[in-house]
Amino acid sequence: MKIGVLGTGTVGATIGSRLIALGHDVKMGSRTSDNEKAAEWVAKNGGKASQGTFEAAAAFGELLFNCTMGAASIEVLNQAGPANLRGKVLIDVSNPLDFSQGMPPSLTVCNTNSLGEEIQKAFPELKVVKALNTMWCGLMVDPNMLQEGDHTVFMSGDDEGAKVKAREILHAFGWKDENILDLGGISTARGTEMLLPIWLRTWGALGTGVFNFKLVK
Amino acid sequence: MKIGVLGTGTVGATIGSRLIALGHDVKMGSRTSDNEKAAEWVAKNGGKASQGTFEAAAAFGELLFNCTMGAASIEVLNQAGPANLRGKVLIDVSNPLDFSQGMPPSLTVCNTNSLGEEIQKAFPELKVVKALNTMWCGLMVDPNMLQEGDHTVFMSGDDEGAKVKAREILHAFGWKDENILDLGGISTARGTEMLLPIWLRTWGALGTGVFNFKLVK
Repeated sequence: MKIGVLGTGTVGATIGSRLIALGHDVKMGSRTSDNEKAAEWVAKNGGKASQGTFEAAAAFGELLFNCTMGAASIEVLNQAGPANLRGKVLIDVSNPLDFSQGMPPSLTVCNTNSLGEEIQKAFPELKVVKALNTMWCGLMVDPNMLQEGDHTVFMSGDDEGAKVKAREILHAFGWKDENILDLGGISTARGTEMLLPIWLRTWGALGTGVFNFKLVK
Repeated sequence: MKIGVLGTGTVGATIGSRLIALGHDVKMGSRTSDNEKAAEWVAKNGGKASQGTFEAAAAFGELLFNCTMGAASIEVLNQAGPANLRGKVLIDVSNPLDFSQGMPPSLTVCNTNSLGEEIQKAFPELKVVKALNTMWCGLMVDPNMLQEGDHTVFMSGDDEGAKVKAREILHAFGWKDENILDLGGISTARGTEMLLPIWLRTWGALGTGVFNFKLVK
């Protein structure tokens, strides 16, 4: 499949490389078509990897990943262009982190709203699925590196068909079906985004990001 | 030990009964000394159980549990009287839930503040330990009812000695030391209180509150 990855940070690079390894064609999008980090990523990942503007990556992808900083996500998607988003599935792994007051960051939006909902509202023809935003990116694409993958990934979204597609990607990453918890509509992203504060403090207590939460029932 | 339990709801009754079963003397506090729910609880729990006002329960307890609704907690502790709180450990299991906008509730305070911090600020001579607030009360006092107790309880507090005492209570409830995660100071209660939104939505998705999260590392 042709996939557009928006964002050139560690999360975008990690997800992009994993998608390439799984046989997909991936275009990494950034503000400029000649972004250095994207160029490095393309050089490392061979012929199925390419780079371009946010607009080019969104036009290229049949499915999109939002791997940008949460505070920039809406603007990035506007740069990508609503016409390039129409009808597509966006797997939104971003979090609305606010680093302006120091560490650990707080959230720019929470409680009675979420970034997932904001994106869905701003781009009603996009099919937003919030997923994977509750863990370190290495685990997102390779859950089996920890306890044989026996921990939980959450999913929120209004479109059932989009969640089926997101689930297929999660399976390909190594997530077992019993460890994927569909919480319901996109407003449930409030729950997963608000998990970030305890994630950040657990990271502080453990001194590593290589952990996840497992639903025990 | 003499323990004061503030609050007559299911959480207070469950914790109070468990403390009685462990051999403690427990006074359940409420707004009035003749509260009916407290009287029922006393009748069920025998000679080591008693009831009284918040003030009487706080004066009685060498250690206190805050099992009141989060929105009422500060007022309840004012009724209990700062002199009766001085130097004591308060295990705060409450959450700042706001039911005024319907279900699921949002939080009255979060992100850059928490109820745990508000209580600690309002009563600086009280030693607040936030714990157990991230799960259904049946599991708080009997973690072994689920997967042999192999799931996580978080703890936040500024006073190390108070956390030692809280840990002893958790051990008595059945929590194994490796499943107790001390996140740090009381400001880390932001993390555990903000776990409520995902708890509530997981409850919605599963249709039961008999679950918990386990830190997998």
